[in-house]
Amino acid sequence: MSLDAILARIDDDLPAATQRLLELLRIKSISTDPAFKQDCQDAADWLVADLQSLGVDVQKRPTPGHPMVVGHAGPDDGTPHLLFYGHYDVQPVDPLNLWDRDPFDPAVEETDTGQVIRGRGAADDKGQLMTFVEALRAWKAVEGDWPCRITFFFEGEEESGSPSLVPFMQEHKDELRADFAMICDTGMFEGRTPAITTMLRGLLGEELTIKGPDKDLHSGSFGGIAINPIRVLSRIVAALHDDQGRVTVPGFYDGVPELSDELEAQWQGLSFDHETFLGDVGLSVPAGEQDRTPLEMIWSRPTCEVNGIGGGYQGDGFKTVLPAQASAKISFRLVGDQDPLAIRKNFRAMVEDMLPPDCTVEWKDHGAGRASGTPTDDPVFAKSLKALSEEWNVPAAYIGSGGSIPIAGHFHTILDTTPVLIGFGKDDDQIHSPNEKYDMESFHKGIRSWARILAAIT
Amino acid sequence: MSLDAILARIDDDLPAATQRLLELLRIKSISTDPAFKQDCQDAADWLVADLQSLGVDVQKRPTPGHPMVVGHAGPDDGTPHLLFYGHYDVQPVDPLNLWDRDPFDPAVEETDTGQVIRGRGAADDKGQLMTFVEALRAWKAVEGDWPCRITFFFEGEEESGSPSLVPFMQEHKDELRADFAMICDTGMFEGRTPAITTMLRGLLGEELTIKGPDKDLHSGSFGGIAINPIRVLSRIVAALHDDQGRVTVPGFYDGVPELSDELEAQWQGLSFDHETFLGDVGLSVPAGEQDRTPLEMIWSRPTCEVNGIGGGYQGDGFKTVLPAQASAKISFRLVGDQDPLAIRKNFRAMVEDMLPPDCTVEWKDHGAGRASGTPTDDPVFAKSLKALSEEWNVPAAYIGSGGSIPIAGHFHTILDTTPVLIGFGKDDDQIHSPNEKYDMESFHKGIRSWARILAAIT
Repeated sequence: MSLDAILARIDDDLPAATQRLLELLRIKSISTDPAFKQDCQDAADWLVADLQSLGVDVQKRPTPGHPMVVGHAGPDDGTPHLLFYGHYDVQPVDPLNLWDRDPFDPAVEETDTGQVIRGRGAADDKGQLMTFVEALRAWKAVEGDWPCRITFFFEGEEESGSPSLVPFMQEHKDELRADFAMICDTGMFEGRTPAITTMLRGLLGEELTIKGPDKDLHSGSFGGIAINPIRVLSRIVAALHDDQGRVTVPGFYDGVPELSDELEAQWQGLSFDHETFLGDVGLSVPAGEQDRTPLEMIWSRPTCEVNGIGGGYQGDGFKTVLPAQASAKISFRLVGDQDPLAIRKNFRAMVEDMLPPDCTVEWKDHGAGRASGTPTDDPVFAKSLKALSEEWNVPAAYIGSGGSIPIAGHFHTILDTTPVLIGFGKDDDQIHSPNEKYDMESFHKGIRSWARILAAIT
Repeated sequence: MSLDAILARIDDDLPAATQRLLELLRIKSISTDPAFKQDCQDAADWLVADLQSLGVDVQKRPTPGHPMVVGHAGPDDGTPHLLFYGHYDVQPVDPLNLWDRDPFDPAVEETDTGQVIRGRGAADDKGQLMTFVEALRAWKAVEGDWPCRITFFFEGEEESGSPSLVPFMQEHKDELRADFAMICDTGMFEGRTPAITTMLRGLLGEELTIKGPDKDLHSGSFGGIAINPIRVLSRIVAALHDDQGRVTVPGFYDGVPELSDELEAQWQGLSFDHETFLGDVGLSVPAGEQDRTPLEMIWSRPTCEVNGIGGGYQGDGFKTVLPAQASAKISFRLVGDQDPLAIRKNFRAMVEDMLPPDCTVEWKDHGAGRASGTPTDDPVFAKSLKALSEEWNVPAAYIGSGGSIPIAGHFHTILDTTPVLIGFGKDDDQIHSPNEKYDMESFHKGIRSWARILAAIT
């Protein structure tokens, strides 16, 4: 095996790899919006065709929601057996007016800090997913064979709570089990330090609609005497945090571990600069729990955020309506042994206790996943860290992640497969926001990183 | 003058009058939305043409916003000189999916309680405006002349804060001055008792946008550490009322009068049934100031209501965004000598005091009008009350109104013209809401009421 030849091949093929990614980015695979159901099918078809062109035995596999793409390649008894996971679905694109280009007409743009690939899904997760596909394409082209037994496993519901994932994993346990699940959906540390993410927060998603009057009313005729659901909802949202930024849901902090001395020391060594982190998004003051460090706020502490609120008249001008209902979408990020179902129960009870007479609440469940932490004692971790350090020419680190990738826990518990989270996203990629991008450096060195990791661990 | 002949003519002409109203209702004159600018012109043109067909000297008069319609008829020295005011603009129609029919494809519908005219603007205010136009049409047809000197004055911005009204009134003071301004934009008491509204609340409209991060963020990466504008806005909205339902804006209750013993006695005589009033809209418990009666809450006490709130992701599914901003539209109903500009100042200062670091607020002004009360000592009031009692066969009453008709005060202060507020709306007309309607009874007896009032006071 010639790693240098594979890396050279990756460099030569970068323009073609970029074109392939742009093709995939043009598919509007927004999983959360039923209007884009066919686009999700199209994205899965595109991946099937691409992997087939590499000789992978791959199929689109139906679920009650969007399809899975599952493929196998390499010697049946090859060790280690690696599973590569990514997701082909993307976030919605609104507010569309804040995009500088059509989110589904992606392009390579020149910026002050180098080339970026701009478009919805560039970083989350199509660009990342393609890093290992491209690494394996180069490997196959140079070596004529696969480095080991490989399973590809792509889902299309990650941005909408992955409802089909657990049932699918349970049903196809034997087919999907591997030694390691390489998950490419995380970021680098501060855009410079390559990293393996070993602590992931869990996610509990809740949507509540407060209902009062049975129709929209005129606030002149009914204001004062009729309960206003926006007021009720605002009181609930305002009560979710105390003055110190702590979440007030009863029992919320049960199972939240304190940071180990070891990790605390390692994180201090990272010299995280919260002023730059916040300054990049127009802020300056850490707004979380006031007795915690900024790095704890984003990596190791649980949070509660309102992701959306709406009620009454929101158009231009003014309408003196007293609305029949108001809604909010709320997400909880969980750590350690926090139990999402217990928190859901306590949160709902807390809200129901706060309802005034004549008001009711309707709930929508948007997923519940536990946090996960990965032990790093298997040599695969040290080897991967070393491969990353070589590619990026800086020491790689084990880090936490503010985001939630519930699938990491599922690999462990359902498939008995060790998740390894390696990704090349940067803090300014604007995932889930307008103008999402993926640095060409992330894409290029990401592909090269996988080649190095494969060479190191097989 | 033969009142009976005029009333008979009104009865005979009702089908044609209804068709005329349906024509006017088909025009989408939503004043608050710039997309309907031409429709507002069309509605004004329609009124000009209709009044011209009666021989009124009438023109569409430009303003910086939507045009006024001003017409004159009757002998130059005729007394009394009556001005008739109404507005041809209507409220927006969203949420459209809650309408049982196209709001601008109006029709006469049969219901359990009689015929209704269904469509946006049926009750507010096109149907009401046409009651006096139809009364005068019948009068002219039967008598061949006008009952007295008449001025028609219709505006097209009432539902968007009437920005052009005061400047127009000031500029055309001499042309518009009359003895009495008959304003048909109010309701009956509990749908049974015809009424002259003599107390009107003022209106202060405010829109605020809380801004935090300079772009939408991913709540996984930035949740906890980054300030969330929805949380900030919710705290502000929640703080606007105390636990007893009192508004907390400093100085808010300055200038709020206590109810006179006389009015209190009269209102007790009305035996207002708040259980029915609230029950009609799916509620049971008065939600306003807990030490006030339900009738005070809706007629004589000032209020603060949130008419709309919005921020973050509100579409289907879930998006873990931490939004850059969140907005609310808030209206204050004012009574007595409350000063809208002082309240605006105190409200804005209160909000600005509540802003955490890194947050700013942007304001939009949606109008500020004082409350007004009309003395009823001129005999025109007693005569009108008697005419109403005769038409409806129940004793008519002087009542308060929860709604705000800022124009009433302007007639008094700018034109030295006494406003007389008589209308035939009912509590269940669903003005400003989906499925707005105007009872055929309101329309028919409304027209007849004006004929009786004209006969009584001229």
